[in-house]
Amino acid sequence: MHELDQRILAEAVYLGNGIVKLDSFLNHRIDTILMTGIGKELARLLLEGGASSVNKVVTAETSGIAPALTTAQALGVPMVFARKKRPVTLVGDCYQSSARSHTKGELATLHISGEYLSPDDRVVIIDDFLGTGDTAEAMLDLVEQSGATLCGIGYVIEKVFEHGRDHMREIEAPVVALARIDIENDRVVIR
Amino acid sequence: MHELDQRILAEAVYLGNGIVKLDSFLNHRIDTILMTGIGKELARLLLEGGASSVNKVVTAETSGIAPALTTAQALGVPMVFARKKRPVTLVGDCYQSSARSHTKGELATLHISGEYLSPDDRVVIIDDFLGTGDTAEAMLDLVEQSGATLCGIGYVIEKVFEHGRDHMREIEAPVVALARIDIENDRVVIR
Repeated sequence: MHELDQRILAEAVYLGNGIVKLDSFLNHRIDTILMTGIGKELARLLLEGGASSVNKVVTAETSGIAPALTTAQALGVPMVFARKKRPVTLVGDCYQSSARSHTKGELATLHISGEYLSPDDRVVIIDDFLGTGDTAEAMLDLVEQSGATLCGIGYVIEKVFEHGRDHMREIEAPVVALARIDIENDRVVIR
Repeated sequence: MHELDQRILAEAVYLGNGIVKLDSFLNHRIDTILMTGIGKELARLLLEGGASSVNKVVTAETSGIAPALTTAQALGVPMVFARKKRPVTLVGDCYQSSARSHTKGELATLHISGEYLSPDDRVVIIDDFLGTGDTAEAMLDLVEQSGATLCGIGYVIEKVFEHGRDHMREIEAPVVALARIDIENDRVVIR
């Protein structure tokens, strides 16, 4: 996605330890028009890759919500976001899986209510970054626990230097990323 | 907003202690089509109420992000969401203000980077619920710290029984809510 690549090259700041700051349009300030385009492009690539009869987009709070919502808009389906703390409103059956946050250094447990994910669902998982793949594994675990069918996974940005794709070799559904970045001499480059 | 009122009456569950569960379309599972309509309606009411030359929508994670993003889409402007934990990517100047979460019972400190809110900005604040007004006060404090101009505040749902509007009497900008709910005999009703 050309515009996304250009924005990354102009605005990404490498903070060391694998952490790429993209707060100017992706993680803190959201460029609404770009984010709407990102959702359309993720939907297009997933459908082109074979995702069919998708009825739900699944993501994790917080930074996944914006791209998941715009992808869900493009697909015309609802979106469910996993919560990192079990809220007081989440009563009854609940799928849970834990992932270590690379940027925050802490273990987070993702929660999705049994009310909103079931064996009838055909889902795509959307997130902002594919990094080490730890969050991806927790999300895949939640979908598997629910019995839903995985139809595809879409990332805005893949950090190729963190090799998260190595965890996804056995996934038969399409796994797409709109931009693939690497670090060279402490600078962010596009692959 | 008729459709929103109907969904609240059909799906809201009152859990006691002022807590209303609307996880089926607002806070956990997001009804994408309804949420897109909510953003258009919030934008329309704020503009009608006098909000002009708005260049940014401001909200707080997590549940504010979806309605803030669709309102920002309708207004054609970017969106900034306050973070509850200061992320490693938030380096440099930062506005901070604390609010007690009624539903979570804990004190949360909201953070917005000085990079993304400044005296040049004309902002509307969007959130899912107007409850006791504690989060609203923290958001207003962040906007005031930045020197930005407040052009309006929009809520998806106002809990009239928590009297948050009492904190907003001195605000000259429009304060709108798409639905106003109350509790009668442990059931949610529309006001």
